[in-house]
Amino acid sequence: MKMAVLVEIIATGDELLIGEKDNTTTPFLVRQVALLGYEVRRTLTVSDNLNDIAGAVREALHRADLIFVTGGLGPTPDDVTREAVAEAIKRPLEFRSDIWEEIQAGLLRRSNSVPPSNMKQAYLPCGAEPLSNCLGTAPGFIIPITNKTIVVLPGPPGEAREMFLREVKQYLSRRYPPVSGRRVCVFKTCGPGEAVLLERLKEVLAEAKKMDVGISFLPQGGEVHLVLKWNDSLKRAGAVEQLKERLMKVLGEDLYGLDEDTLPGKVGELLSQNSLTVGVAESCTGGLVANYLTDVPGSSRYVRGGVVAYTEEVKMRVLGVQESTLNRYGAVSLQTAKEMAEGVRRLTGASIGLATTGFAGPEGGTPDDPVGTVYLGLATRDDVVAQRIFFPGLGRITVKSIAAKRALDLLRRYLLSLSEGGSSL
Amino acid sequence: MKMAVLVEIIATGDELLIGEKDNTTTPFLVRQVALLGYEVRRTLTVSDNLNDIAGAVREALHRADLIFVTGGLGPTPDDVTREAVAEAIKRPLEFRSDIWEEIQAGLLRRSNSVPPSNMKQAYLPCGAEPLSNCLGTAPGFIIPITNKTIVVLPGPPGEAREMFLREVKQYLSRRYPPVSGRRVCVFKTCGPGEAVLLERLKEVLAEAKKMDVGISFLPQGGEVHLVLKWNDSLKRAGAVEQLKERLMKVLGEDLYGLDEDTLPGKVGELLSQNSLTVGVAESCTGGLVANYLTDVPGSSRYVRGGVVAYTEEVKMRVLGVQESTLNRYGAVSLQTAKEMAEGVRRLTGASIGLATTGFAGPEGGTPDDPVGTVYLGLATRDDVVAQRIFFPGLGRITVKSIAAKRALDLLRRYLLSLSEGGSSL
Repeated sequence: MKMAVLVEIIATGDELLIGEKDNTTTPFLVRQVALLGYEVRRTLTVSDNLNDIAGAVREALHRADLIFVTGGLGPTPDDVTREAVAEAIKRPLEFRSDIWEEIQAGLLRRSNSVPPSNMKQAYLPCGAEPLSNCLGTAPGFIIPITNKTIVVLPGPPGEAREMFLREVKQYLSRRYPPVSGRRVCVFKTCGPGEAVLLERLKEVLAEAKKMDVGISFLPQGGEVHLVLKWNDSLKRAGAVEQLKERLMKVLGEDLYGLDEDTLPGKVGELLSQNSLTVGVAESCTGGLVANYLTDVPGSSRYVRGGVVAYTEEVKMRVLGVQESTLNRYGAVSLQTAKEMAEGVRRLTGASIGLATTGFAGPEGGTPDDPVGTVYLGLATRDDVVAQRIFFPGLGRITVKSIAAKRALDLLRRYLLSLSEGGSSL
Repeated sequence: MKMAVLVEIIATGDELLIGEKDNTTTPFLVRQVALLGYEVRRTLTVSDNLNDIAGAVREALHRADLIFVTGGLGPTPDDVTREAVAEAIKRPLEFRSDIWEEIQAGLLRRSNSVPPSNMKQAYLPCGAEPLSNCLGTAPGFIIPITNKTIVVLPGPPGEAREMFLREVKQYLSRRYPPVSGRRVCVFKTCGPGEAVLLERLKEVLAEAKKMDVGISFLPQGGEVHLVLKWNDSLKRAGAVEQLKERLMKVLGEDLYGLDEDTLPGKVGELLSQNSLTVGVAESCTGGLVANYLTDVPGSSRYVRGGVVAYTEEVKMRVLGVQESTLNRYGAVSLQTAKEMAEGVRRLTGASIGLATTGFAGPEGGTPDDPVGTVYLGLATRDDVVAQRIFFPGLGRITVKSIAAKRALDLLRRYLLSLSEGGSSL
């Protein structure tokens, strides 16, 4: 049996060690490496100190086959990762005029000037293969050392991500062929909480345990992801497929996608398939639903627009919510959610209006509808529905995020009912 | 001169190494330790493997004064942190009947039964001081070893947090008195890029270097943070203060805040101080400006609302942008940004209207205004301004985020000019 490829990930940066910034690149790499079937043995974060970085790389070379180093490739004097990696593997840095050309071209495209400090970014350890950076100036690089590999990526998470997905992934797949078949699979759900899912999945979980397939629950602000893990062997591939099918069946419509799928992406697909458009009226979510929807490339084809209605006046004047509704039921109510959804549908000329109104906290709320209460509304030409959700004891930003996800999920379920030839609402 | 207390944080758990779960306890401890004035040198994550954990603890004891180990204190066979720590420091585990009593009492309160597997949690390395767990069964512990200390905390983030705040913080403050004054300070700027700041700060950086004050540059989607780090001593406190003042002076209005300040929070403060309100019209940012503004608790006092105008029809019908403006200049133009800002101000009844329109990509753009071009508008009762910003070669989500930050920054600078008795625009 083939041995697993052992991986260590070294993040560098003082900002990660003083709590100024959370490290998001390491979790990204951990997930990507798991998808390739490699095994991460250790991740660490060290400060922007040449000796600390060099020491960490040297130690990792003793234990791992594949080592990632992220951060410290910028033009400023505190960026020392190039030097530290060269030091760790005892190879000199060399000036690469081809890379310098590329950096200069990028700088000129962006800003019309070439600060001399950027020249330092054209130095790479001998034998390194450069990785081009389509989002910034710092090139990354790969150093193959006999059967081991060091991959160095820039600090900004977007740049590291792009570089990994565009070049590093293919490189690694060639050098260390992924174990046949996938060993990790993520089922993404929205709606029921972790405890409800746990109860419903009892039998499937027992079966998975017998098969030695691990299933863990990962709640993610309004969503719950189920992560399946198993050691691959051709003999049981069929059994694992059967388990996955059973899981899909039990989850039903609560399952919105797998692996790289996102909820706004899924909603966009369904809108496009049905040639429908959406407009959003937001009170407590303050623009987050529209922001999620418009993160998807091409969303301008089905998002017509939205209104953030943070005052009663805007709810009435812009969205056409009745004053009597606000007086009788309050701004946070089923009735107001419905009228907001209808209003934004009319206003934006969309086929569907979606609305949120609630108490995100920390202030506000009533005895009946305390902080954490949110009403969601959805209106079409023919009908309008609303629902109440309640998440007590959470912070403002979490309530906003859960409410926005659940609003998208309400829309997703409505669109699914259309595809299934169901009612118009 | 007092030396800094050096800290390493070791998180254990397979779930952290396959991307199933993000590690939130390490960032929490990093922040807490920075507040005590200690210096985190390294953080790492290792799998639930006795040798890996013991090895990591042994290595850390060579380098650090204070070592945190988190996770692996549960009752199941994969929880081996107690054994690993005992192994690393060559001390046997001993059964502590006082702890067993406490665990039993807790279990009976919660579930009326005492599974024998929990007995394992009553074993601690000799000489360990237990830390009680008010949220779960696993006790933590502290092991003082001459002048070094190992603190072991349970894996569930809530339990680790509570235990740290209730007992560990006070213990550490006594054992390693916090260094007086802060040794880390963050200067937060918006506007100029990293390279421009570097050029402008050349002299200050040279001076800082002579004083052994580290300054690193941290670009954060539209903002650049400068992180100052120095070892404290009473003698040079005055010199460091002078350096900080000089930095403030050179940065001028590009500096929006320090440490925990946020750009939307700062904008909110300035709006409140001037008793002004804001309405936002967003095209390319798709709701993100409103979302940033409404993340701040109490923002309903100065945010009146907003419009996401993703179609020309919504720009015209809802915001009152002239059809002739769209035809002559296009939806992405200075003129449209101005009319959007004026329109949303009128529509929401806010004192200030703020607008964004641009090409976030990946599709769209014109030869003159390629993807990455964004126009920002700001309108008051008396005047209206607009500006063009351009960030080529970035992804859609990054362009949205930079554009939203720069829109907030435009508003911040306008509000500052008011406080300084400047023109109304």
